[in-house]
Amino acid sequence: MNLTSDNIAPAHEAVLEALAAANRGPARPYGHDDVNARVEAMLSEIFETEVAAFLVTTGTAANALSLAQMVPPWGAAIGHAEAHVMHDECGAPEFFTNGAKMVGAPGLDGRLTPASLSALLARDFWTPPTHVAPAALTLSQATEAGTVYRPGEIAALTEIARDKGLRVHMDGARFANAVVSTRAAPADLTWKAGVEALSFGFTKNGAMAAEAIVLFAPDLIKNLAERRKRGGHTWSKGRFVAAQIEALLADGLWLDLAKTANARAAELALGLQARELRLAFPVEANEVFVWLPAALHEALKAKGAAYYVWSSDSTAPERRGGKDEVIARLIASFATTSKEIASFLSAIDAVRAPGKKASRSPGTPLF
Amino acid sequence: MNLTSDNIAPAHEAVLEALAAANRGPARPYGHDDVNARVEAMLSEIFETEVAAFLVTTGTAANALSLAQMVPPWGAAIGHAEAHVMHDECGAPEFFTNGAKMVGAPGLDGRLTPASLSALLARDFWTPPTHVAPAALTLSQATEAGTVYRPGEIAALTEIARDKGLRVHMDGARFANAVVSTRAAPADLTWKAGVEALSFGFTKNGAMAAEAIVLFAPDLIKNLAERRKRGGHTWSKGRFVAAQIEALLADGLWLDLAKTANARAAELALGLQARELRLAFPVEANEVFVWLPAALHEALKAKGAAYYVWSSDSTAPERRGGKDEVIARLIASFATTSKEIASFLSAIDAVRAPGKKASRSPGTPLF
Amino acid sequence: MNLTSDNIAPAHEAVLEALAAANRGPARPYGHDDVNARVEAMLSEIFETEVAAFLVTTGTAANALSLAQMVPPWGAAIGHAEAHVMHDECGAPEFFTNGAKMVGAPGLDGRLTPASLSALLARDFWTPPTHVAPAALTLSQATEAGTVYRPGEIAALTEIARDKGLRVHMDGARFANAVVSTRAAPADLTWKAGVEALSFGFTKNGAMAAEAIVLFAPDLIKNLAERRKRGGHTWSKGRFVAAQIEALLADGLWLDLAKTANARAAELALGLQARELRLAFPVEANEVFVWLPAALHEALKAKGAAYYVWSSDSTAPERRGGKDEVIARLIASFATTSKEIASFLSAIDAVRAPGKKASRSPGTPLF
Amino acid sequence: MNLTSDNIAPAHEAVLEALAAANRGPARPYGHDDVNARVEAMLSEIFETEVAAFLVTTGTAANALSLAQMVPPWGAAIGHAEAHVMHDECGAPEFFTNGAKMVGAPGLDGRLTPASLSALLARDFWTPPTHVAPAALTLSQATEAGTVYRPGEIAALTEIARDKGLRVHMDGARFANAVVSTRAAPADLTWKAGVEALSFGFTKNGAMAAEAIVLFAPDLIKNLAERRKRGGHTWSKGRFVAAQIEALLADGLWLDLAKTANARAAELALGLQARELRLAFPVEANEVFVWLPAALHEALKAKGAAYYVWSSDSTAPERRGGKDEVIARLIASFATTSKEIASFLSAIDAVRAPGKKASRSPGTPLF
Repeated sequence: MNLTSDNIAPAHEAVLEALAAANRGPARPYGHDDVNARVEAMLSEIFETEVAAFLVTTGTAANALSLAQMVPPWGAAIGHAEAHVMHDECGAPEFFTNGAKMVGAPGLDGRLTPASLSALLARDFWTPPTHVAPAALTLSQATEAGTVYRPGEIAALTEIARDKGLRVHMDGARFANAVVSTRAAPADLTWKAGVEALSFGFTKNGAMAAEAIVLFAPDLIKNLAERRKRGGHTWSKGRFVAAQIEALLADGLWLDLAKTANARAAELALGLQARELRLAFPVEANEVFVWLPAALHEALKAKGAAYYVWSSDSTAPERRGGKDEVIARLIASFATTSKEIASFLSAIDAVRAPGKKASRSPGTPLF
Repeated sequence: MNLTSDNIAPAHEAVLEALAAANRGPARPYGHDDVNARVEAMLSEIFETEVAAFLVTTGTAANALSLAQMVPPWGAAIGHAEAHVMHDECGAPEFFTNGAKMVGAPGLDGRLTPASLSALLARDFWTPPTHVAPAALTLSQATEAGTVYRPGEIAALTEIARDKGLRVHMDGARFANAVVSTRAAPADLTWKAGVEALSFGFTKNGAMAAEAIVLFAPDLIKNLAERRKRGGHTWSKGRFVAAQIEALLADGLWLDLAKTANARAAELALGLQARELRLAFPVEANEVFVWLPAALHEALKAKGAAYYVWSSDSTAPERRGGKDEVIARLIASFATTSKEIASFLSAIDAVRAPGKKASRSPGTPLF
Repeated sequence: MNLTSDNIAPAHEAVLEALAAANRGPARPYGHDDVNARVEAMLSEIFETEVAAFLVTTGTAANALSLAQMVPPWGAAIGHAEAHVMHDECGAPEFFTNGAKMVGAPGLDGRLTPASLSALLARDFWTPPTHVAPAALTLSQATEAGTVYRPGEIAALTEIARDKGLRVHMDGARFANAVVSTRAAPADLTWKAGVEALSFGFTKNGAMAAEAIVLFAPDLIKNLAERRKRGGHTWSKGRFVAAQIEALLADGLWLDLAKTANARAAELALGLQARELRLAFPVEANEVFVWLPAALHEALKAKGAAYYVWSSDSTAPERRGGKDEVIARLIASFATTSKEIASFLSAIDAVRAPGKKASRSPGTPLF
Repeated sequence: MNLTSDNIAPAHEAVLEALAAANRGPARPYGHDDVNARVEAMLSEIFETEVAAFLVTTGTAANALSLAQMVPPWGAAIGHAEAHVMHDECGAPEFFTNGAKMVGAPGLDGRLTPASLSALLARDFWTPPTHVAPAALTLSQATEAGTVYRPGEIAALTEIARDKGLRVHMDGARFANAVVSTRAAPADLTWKAGVEALSFGFTKNGAMAAEAIVLFAPDLIKNLAERRKRGGHTWSKGRFVAAQIEALLADGLWLDLAKTANARAAELALGLQARELRLAFPVEANEVFVWLPAALHEALKAKGAAYYVWSSDSTAPERRGGKDEVIARLIASFATTSKEIASFLSAIDAVRAPGKKASRSPGTPLF
């Protein structure tokens, strides 16, 4: 019953097999190998446009390097106030940008809105050289609240950004989950909606450690090789990053794995709702945020259930919790089984009323 | 006939097997897993003292992070003028230290000497706050010239450093090759000789991508976790870095692989000397630097031989080359075969005098 | 009618005279002169404790250097969300700290409150190494809203900070105005209330360009000389910074000048209230924030009145403005005359009802 | 007898008068005042082309900001190995460039030569992204050895730089002394010879604290205002920096003061040579480097003579000192009197042979 994160999962079998397959004979170092070239070609196909790809092994590196390409030290990147890139990378964006500002805007359910973004950009603290200049918009897809942006929502935000001269980055640590959730084409979720660079995450979705910085705007390529090298993120045996991604992109495996993760989250959400527990955010990808009475939470922990307690200012009024409730963040990965979900739900039942089952039928819509 | 680098080699089979073995069920992320703990214990055993280990995946990251723990922005790290860390990491040490200086001292055959180090430290540009303060000594083992330091040589240098208040780092991208070459105990080459932090390299010696920052001085631990995270070098699925190292440390595999690489370099050096070609540096690890007449060099290139042309101010007078000669850098790895070495030597024979063989016997000492 | 800022004022005569007096013969450079020593002694006397002082010439430098002494790159400085140091220094704190975060907390009338500070520190994004660690509290005195902290208010905040291991900085660009306003001893407003470093501003209060970083915590001295030099803020002819401060500290001139500025602001505030105009913040120092109907604002601008239009989320509910109103920020300096204030008020009268005067008597309390 | 530096001098009377003159009424802050505009116009006239000027108050700031405009974090600035900007600014260039490299090349008498520069640029450590890229050439005029570059020498160096894509900066902390020495037009020493940005120093030449970053290449203007602000170098009462420069530029005062300083140095050099003391470098500006027997040096120090002992690898073979000799660095400023020079020489006479005078006639050529 470990639902702490999708990064506790192992790698998918196919990834290991691909590493073994790539492990033959010499190869040109530093990413100048055949597998890297193939991955770049596959990405161009998936995104229906020619892209440049710089592979790294952590989402932190992918995000920080992408933002550093867009934001000068005297600039700011704007994102949702609770986005991962704002808080959870120990200041990596500030490090790689050499001291730019990360400025958060509010938004319900983890999503920025045109109104929130416009209001922030209309503030009176953007006059250089007294103030830093807003230089990039960064959108998390899926968001830190487990919700997703639809293509139109992205386009509405990027249009505002572009009007103000901002570049647009997408933190796609769970991009696959968002693609599956929206059923939108990767192109529609990115460059066609105004995204210029994507941190395309594979680690949480079956890789050992692999992320692609996918560049849709060719001018963003300049000096990224230097930044990556200088950051210590250029693998000499680069084929082994690329091989992981190739395995996941081949035959749509990345989508299959995300589908599994999303499905497990949906099962979990349905089960929780059937047990009269309220969700804190809509469940749109592979994360479930649910209000648990403190007593239930303690009892679950005591039974060995593993998950994080969350806090957020982003919950919609109608989904706010009570005084003695906590938000449990429950994450499913490609490796989570229906049995694990059932087992977590059973643990709730066992705690609440030993012997008693859920009262509502499982067909209830999620949100 | 690809002798460009040891980083063109694949990973050793045992490393791939270890990845597969580690790929079971969930594991605590960010290095808090069992394999990391085991690796730290193994390193403590190998170094005969309790060490702390922070795993990363590039030598650049290991070096830059180690130096950043020692050198403030207004400090300097001192190393050999031609060391890898001085030139070949696109300024990563400057980046991770937030702008410290890398100051090179000369020394024959890629080795710093007590005289050279003392002379540099006696210069009149070390008075704070006008000048930066020397804060760390960094030694490359094996050196960029393919030579090694013996324990007494290291101790002589670190004593000078310690007297001036400098911390001591060792760039051990090819540490295994140096251990095999010196037949010294790892402890004697490091903390017993005054080294406080070691970038212990595995990538060039059979890993896919794995380096351990081994700390002998406990005070150097503080905030390294933050630096690593902020640099984007904390893998969520940390077991997969650790598993590579575990596989190489187990049963002394790391030493066996380095022995192979060193042996191939020795075969090559003998073969070159037998062909009346002069070595630019003593061959003490897995790298061979040899003077090639320009015509021979061109002919070899034309035949597809792959290696880098080198330049150095560090060659001893008796090993200097002639006007129409270039230094070829030839590197053997654990995966280099005796057949490949023989094939390279044959190519020389074929170019120089088709049909003619080497005149000197193969038993001749190397240097 | 130029009320844009206190930095448009000239220097006080005494400052110019002091420069001339200091301009005799050679002096030891880089702050090792007699005037610097005298200033440090005067500051120690004024603050009733031995302090160390590092002189610079801009408030931006004083703040950024002070914070850099307290906040590591993987740390955060916490201040009021609308503080000058958060927004108005083009990222100088981020630059000098090598990429730390500036995190704002809300608070009415520009003041942090214990509740607001505690709430921020209780958030779940302060767990290293995933998150940056809160490392310093920075209080602006007077605040960006022209209000001041009383000694007890400061102590209540610094106690919370100290409990969490934070260091405490005070941005005293208008410290003199706050001393005059609170009638508190400088010691009571600083180290006795838990402040460890003060950016003591003189530029806005009669100097040409002079600010003192006053350190109450001796451990904060370490390496500040290096940071200042490296930042380009160590004057070779250091006596000329010190002489300005000496002139202002002598015979309490700094307090006299601040008294004048505060008095002018009070006159202005009274006059505005007498004209039924609402203040946006209490007037406690030398700044007046007043709601102006848009039409009045336009008319005043047309008549040549110079001031900034402000926006703030920090206005108390009872002082909020209406739909068609703007906040005018009006700042008085030591050089502002009562005649200028009267002239500004007359301009309002002239605009609103040519010939008509203020209806309320001038004795009305301000707030 | 204080010849330690030209920064121990006071400011020139005219500078103080200009400060007083500027100290009237309000002025637009942050450099948007009339004096700044006039200074920019005067500089354009002096340099016979339209220039942009950014005023700061230390040479360290001027140099570091200029270089930061030219050199990316993954770049290098190349200068003479013993230049001030290489060693004496506590890493300010590294700080402002966010971690670029300062790479020194040798050259006799403190001067870079085309051969030395070309050789450095031809080295094999300039291949991005492995290596940093050479991005700027920085020339010190006058040099750290008190010598100067003639227009043709500058042009020869900048041509090499331009061919390799480097930008060109000149550290003119003693530019006035070089102009007087070479009798060349300021334009001929700068933009006509390929210099794109000049740190034009006034502090050592009569100002209190004032330096102008003079930009000849318009593209270098971009974002310099942000860098300056972020570095804490934008004075709010900017007229007081500008006024100093205006006073010095008016009626050629800057040249008169430099002439005086150079003349004093010439007197001193002649006097020393007349006493059979050997100069370490040609005396071409306001600095004299002379070999003193250790005993003489000790005796002079005992008599209260103040100067620095120097060391250099840049002395020409014919000017090398003996075993028991030290180099004394003696600097004259605009405020140094002939009497002080005579007094220093008399001290030597008194020490060596009480009562005895110099034997050689004063008309002897200097070098």
